[in-house]
Parts: sequence; structure tokens; C-alpha cells
Amino acid sequence: MDTKTKPVAIDQLRIDGPRLWDSLMELAQIGATPKGGVCRLTLTDLDRQGRDLVTRWAREAGLMVTIDRIGNGFMRRPGRNNSLPPVVAGSHIDTQPTGGKFDGNYGVLAGLEVVRTLNDHGIQTEAPIEVAFWTNEEGSRFVPVMMGSGVFAKAFTLEHAYAATDTEGKSVKDELERIGYVGPEEPGAHPIGTYFETHIEQGPVLEDNDKTIGVVTGVLGIRWYDCTVTGMEAHAGPTPMALRKDALQVATRLMQEVVACAHRHPPHGRGTVGMVQVHPNSRNVIPGRVKFSIDLRNASDAICAAMDADIRAVAARIAAETGLAIAIEQVSEYPAQPFHADCIAAVQRAADRLGYSNMPAVSGAGHDAVYMARLAPAGMIFIPCKDGISHNEIEDAKPEHITAGCNVLLQAMLERAGVA
Amino acid sequence: MDTKTKPVAIDQLRIDGPRLWDSLMELAQIGATPKGGVCRLTLTDLDRQGRDLVTRWAREAGLMVTIDRIGNGFMRRPGRNNSLPPVVAGSHIDTQPTGGKFDGNYGVLAGLEVVRTLNDHGIQTEAPIEVAFWTNEEGSRFVPVMMGSGVFAKAFTLEHAYAATDTEGKSVKDELERIGYVGPEEPGAHPIGTYFETHIEQGPVLEDNDKTIGVVTGVLGIRWYDCTVTGMEAHAGPTPMALRKDALQVATRLMQEVVACAHRHPPHGRGTVGMVQVHPNSRNVIPGRVKFSIDLRNASDAICAAMDADIRAVAARIAAETGLAIAIEQVSEYPAQPFHADCIAAVQRAADRLGYSNMPAVSGAGHDAVYMARLAPAGMIFIPCKDGISHNEIEDAKPEHITAGCNVLLQAMLERAGVA
Repeated sequence: MDTKTKPVAIDQLRIDGPRLWDSLMELAQIGATPKGGVCRLTLTDLDRQGRDLVTRWAREAGLMVTIDRIGNGFMRRPGRNNSLPPVVAGSHIDTQPTGGKFDGNYGVLAGLEVVRTLNDHGIQTEAPIEVAFWTNEEGSRFVPVMMGSGVFAKAFTLEHAYAATDTEGKSVKDELERIGYVGPEEPGAHPIGTYFETHIEQGPVLEDNDKTIGVVTGVLGIRWYDCTVTGMEAHAGPTPMALRKDALQVATRLMQEVVACAHRHPPHGRGTVGMVQVHPNSRNVIPGRVKFSIDLRNASDAICAAMDADIRAVAARIAAETGLAIAIEQVSEYPAQPFHADCIAAVQRAADRLGYSNMPAVSGAGHDAVYMARLAPAGMIFIPCKDGISHNEIEDAKPEHITAGCNVLLQAMLERAGVA
Repeated sequence: MDTKTKPVAIDQLRIDGPRLWDSLMELAQIGATPKGGVCRLTLTDLDRQGRDLVTRWAREAGLMVTIDRIGNGFMRRPGRNNSLPPVVAGSHIDTQPTGGKFDGNYGVLAGLEVVRTLNDHGIQTEAPIEVAFWTNEEGSRFVPVMMGSGVFAKAFTLEHAYAATDTEGKSVKDELERIGYVGPEEPGAHPIGTYFETHIEQGPVLEDNDKTIGVVTGVLGIRWYDCTVTGMEAHAGPTPMALRKDALQVATRLMQEVVACAHRHPPHGRGTVGMVQVHPNSRNVIPGRVKFSIDLRNASDAICAAMDADIRAVAARIAAETGLAIAIEQVSEYPAQPFHADCIAAVQRAADRLGYSNMPAVSGAGHDAVYMARLAPAGMIFIPCKDGISHNEIEDAKPEHITAGCNVLLQAMLERAGVA
């Protein structure tokens, strides 16, 4: 632990923004891309280098590092009462193939910066503080996504995760062993008292509202469907309008309704058709079959179920009106995950106390915090990212927002951990 | 010329249905596919075999065969007054890769059956009768389609046609020479007095109306466009509905309007979106760009122009309402081609006299008759095809309809040629 203590009132305590920024930029050098992004896919040599750097920094900050069997890392700063479960800040350090510098990495290094700040000021917490990094959050190389936190929360088994292979046939187990990150601890055996995750928003809402902090109230539930409309392919010339069974004409009505359905379930309803396949996809042939994806999201499972019923009823009505077959098959479902009221309140209070403009936010994308919320009180802190863009090499965030989010994390963690 | 003459009143004259059917089935053996269709692509060895068979039959029926420099064939039965331009029945014998037995082939062999019938009964016409087959109507192997008749009508040059290459880089000129079908005659030098083309409808209207004969009044004009809607791709989760620039949501509104535009221009308006490309076409990404084809058709160039103005106005309105860019680029235009009133009337009278149920029809697809109509009075005779299906190995037509169409051709040709 650092020894240069500076007495300061807890509510005056601030993290060292430039130090956090420098650490982010240094970690971003591992796997840096020419366009300014990062490609550090999970369980590659670059991932090992990233893990090695972060755990070296942790040890330099006096933390004890534990790795579990799926490669999740826990970096512990003892509290006064070490029988209490730790207050954990975590996220991930793997990236998308054309990822940015902030997604995930920020949440881990913000946790480390909290520790460094506590060390600077010689502050002892009542409960222990931990910083966690979770294996393979991104899911770009191995499916499922949020693998380490999912195994930890027993959403699926360690064996299932180990067996996943990349496109070259390499398995998670082999790659984890190869980079030396199979630890001794059983996933999930590690206690979690409270979990916070600081993250760029990955959406445009904070920027659009000119707010510094998003107080995240939960993560939207997601339902994915494949929809197929079957008509009859025919020549565009010789077939009069009245005798057509145009699958695309019917499919586009339903695609419009996916968006309308989201608007019918405000404020958090989301409806997206992202993928469309037209058969035979020829300029002068009336489409005989159209397959498309539907992505519905909302803030509670009950509203997601209402959206499901809504879109199915609309599809049945359109099928009856047009006489064309419409098949809707659900392919995935992720339940909504509200965060814990105490954690939400802690984040809200910290942001208010620190004088940062803030607003309630929902996360439309999944995070490791979703699984942690099944195990312990959990919450998230969002900061704006430029143009809402993420999973892209041009992903960007402002230093003052990076600093602000970490200050909120510091205050929220101290509230939950208590100061000795 | 056949010598077994049977005296018969002209209006009692009937073609030999089984003989025509047998010839169709025999020609269909060349390039026969396991599924019952025909693959006899233009200028292949199989096309040569087909041409050889048809010209052998023509010579056996006493016809004089002339080939022009683009490989079009003219098979001539002299009239009493050979200074008159011939009354020509024609079509093509090349097929689609997965084509049927009737498309094109029927029009050529119906002309041959007319000649055989005249021979059977020792009937001399005033004007000569000719049967024509046009090179590469289908355009599957070489572009442009309707190549032989197009060169003949000077829609484009012989050199342009010669230079066309297939996917293997083989040229029309080389392939035409290879199969021995470069004739001495200059394309277009051959006089045409009147032109008739008998064809399966390739659409569902006659079958739907339970009619035997379609009296074709013209061929629809066609305009082809590429339309691109540009929005902003973003994550389906974190992006609220109000902050989206969903290119597919806007594109599907316009796709609906393509169909509505056709309905606004009855009775012959056709509007089809056949091809759609969504970018990036990923389930959980709001589409940033959608490109799709528009195919508009109608019976006159003036109405086609009105449809063009209609869809552009709608696109401009949608672009203004949504703020997304919509670009419409016209990629092709084929003018409408009405047929000659005298030819339409001749077909109509023949069908009525023969007691065949009939109705006016338009052709939504192009035919060699479109180019012939630029040179001489022209008309077409449609017969039903099963389920309106063509360009498919399951293309089918009933023997009684095959016979009926040929009887109409016979009577119409005799009306135009005169009986000596």
C-alpha cells in the first residue's frame, strides 16, 4: 500500500484523472490498431499481455490477485473487517476485433484507480475492495458472450464454456491454459458483497441530453426472433398486382410494425429489424420468400412479453389479410435485469454530491453486471461516448467524463464499503 | 412441298395438334434436364443441335433456309406474289439454364406447323410465309437479351452483339462461328411484311380468367431503378427509437409505396422490389444503409413517366419527413410497345371464329416481337401456362392450348398473307 497519505474529507476525495487516462492509453497500446482502436481478442497472446499488465499494476498497488478456473481475475484490497464480502468494481479487458480503447477496459481501470486513490490518501475501508476482470465478455472469438461472469453466476457450466471453440477449432480450455490463466479458484466460490461497473454508454442518450453521468437502473430484456414470410415467386412483368403473392410486400408491413410495436411500449421499447434475406433476390422476380430478424427489448420481462404478444397478433392479422404464411420463431431470450435500488441510489447520490449532471439510464446491451446482479446488489455508472459509437475503432470518450465516472464509482464504493 | 392435298374451306382449316406437340417434345430432348425442363443455352453445342433439327424439319417441309450474320434464321415458303414482303411467325429456341419446353420453342414450331398444315392441304398464299428464329432471346449467357432481333431492328449494332462475352470470356462472334451459324445475310436486310409471335403467357391472367387465348395488345414499358437509403448504423440495444436513423425503416416505407404506385396507375401498373441489400445485415445492428431495386411497368410511356414522377415525389416526401437521404438512380428503360391494330384485330377475329374463349392481354415481359413491331405490323398470341410459371423446369402448358394458339396463328397469318 502506498505510504504518502494525504488527509482529506471523504466527500472531498477525488481520483487522479490524468493517471487513469494514462493507464487507459497504456493498456490500449496492447493490440492497438492503425485507426486508433484496439484488437485484443479474448485468450490471445495480446489478451495475456493485457492481463499481465493489469495484474502487475494491481500488485504494484498492493492488491492480492486471485484467478479462477475460467480465468476471471479478482484483485483484492483488504478492509478493516475482512469477514465482510468485498465491494467489487469490475468489467472486462478483452475487445472486439475492431474495438475501441474504452469498452470494458474503463470499468477495470476505474476500479484500479479507486484503489490507487485510496492508497494515496491512506484510507481504509470497512469491507474489502476488489477489482475484477471477467473473461470473454465480448463473445467475438468464443460464444457465449459474458462467458466468465456467466460461468461465475452459474448461467451455464464451466464445461460448456471450456468446450467453446473459435473458427480455427481452438477451445477456450486450451487457449486459457496456453496463456497461463487457468487459476485454482472455483468460479462462483468468490463472495461478492456489492458490484459496480463503470462503462461508456455505447448509445447516444447522455450526449443527446448533455449529461455527464447515467445512473443505470437496469438492463433491458431482449427477445430475438426469426420471421419468415412465404409467398410465391413470379415474374415482375407478366404478373398483375392482384394476382401476386409478394412476400416482400407483406414482410415490409411487418417490419414497419416491429418499429411501431416499440413505440407502443414506451419509454424503453426497442424494435429492430437488422437482417433481411430476400429469395431469390433478383430485380425482376417478385420475392417468394423473405426471412428477417426481429429484436425486441424493454425494461421488464412483463413488457417484453406484451411486445411479444403484440407483434404476434399483428403478424396474425397481416397473414389473415394477405393470405400469406408468416412464421415467427423465437431464437433467444435474455430476461430484463433491474439493478438494486441501493446501488442505484448510491450512484445517484454520488453523482449529485459531486455536482455532475446526471439522468436515469437503461442499458440496452448486456454487461457482466447483468450476471452479477443475480448474485449481489449491483449497479452501473454510464458516461457519454462520442456519437454513441462503440464496437468501433473510432469509439471515443472525453477525459473529463472518464474522470467523472470514476469519481462516482469511488464515492459509491466507499458508501457501500464504509470507511473505517 | 407435301403432296397429299385435302381440299378444305380456309375457315375449316386446322393444324395437326399431336404433330406440333410431338415436335415440341422432340426438340425438348435436346438439352433435356432430369426435372423435365430444358437447358439449351444460346450458341452452345446443344443450341446448334436444336437449330440443326429445326432447319432440317424446315427443309423437309420444303422451306428455304437463310441465316444472317447474327445467326437469325428465316425459313421461307414462297407465295404466289413473291415481291410481297413475307408474313412471318417467329420466336426463339434458346432457353434459360433451368428453362422449360415451351418458352420460345412453341412460337417457332407453331410457325413450322402452320407451314406443314398449308402443305397438307396444298394451300398457296398470296404473300410468302416465313418462320423465323432469333438468336439469344433469353440473354442468360450473353447480354443484351433479345440480341438477334435487336440487331435485326438496329436497336444496337452487330459489333456490339459480337463483342458480348459469357462468364468464361467466350464471345458471341466466336461461339456463333464455332457452331456454324454465321450466315451471309446482313441483319435487317430481310423484309418483314407482318410479324406474329405465339407464346405461353408466362403469367397467371389467362388461367385465372379461364381463357384459352390472350389477344396481346402490347408490351409494357419498363423502368428499372436502384434506390439507396442512407441512415446511421447503431446498436439495436442502446439506441432509443427517437434517436435512430434506421435506413430499413425508411426503405420499407418506400418499398410499400412502389406497390401502391402500381395500384395508383391501373389496370396495367406493375411495381416490384425484387432485390434488397441491407448493411451491415446483422441482427442487433440498426441498418445504416439499404439498397434495393425498383421495377415499374405500364402500358404506355406516358404512364410510365407518370409512375416515375409519382415514386420520386413519394421518395422526396419520405426523405423530408425522416431526414434520411434517399437516392434513386434509373438504371434501365425499355419503352412500351403497343402492337399494330390490324394484327390485334386479326388475332381477335381468328380466336372468335375458332370459338376459343379469349381476352385482351398485355405482355409484361419482353419478346422478339417488341423489336419486330418497330419494323412492321406485329402482334402476339398468348396461351395459358400452368400456374403462370415460366423460366422454370416445371413450366407446363396443355396440349389443347398449344393447338388452339397455333390455329389462331394459322388463321391470322392467312388473313394477313391472303390465300391465292
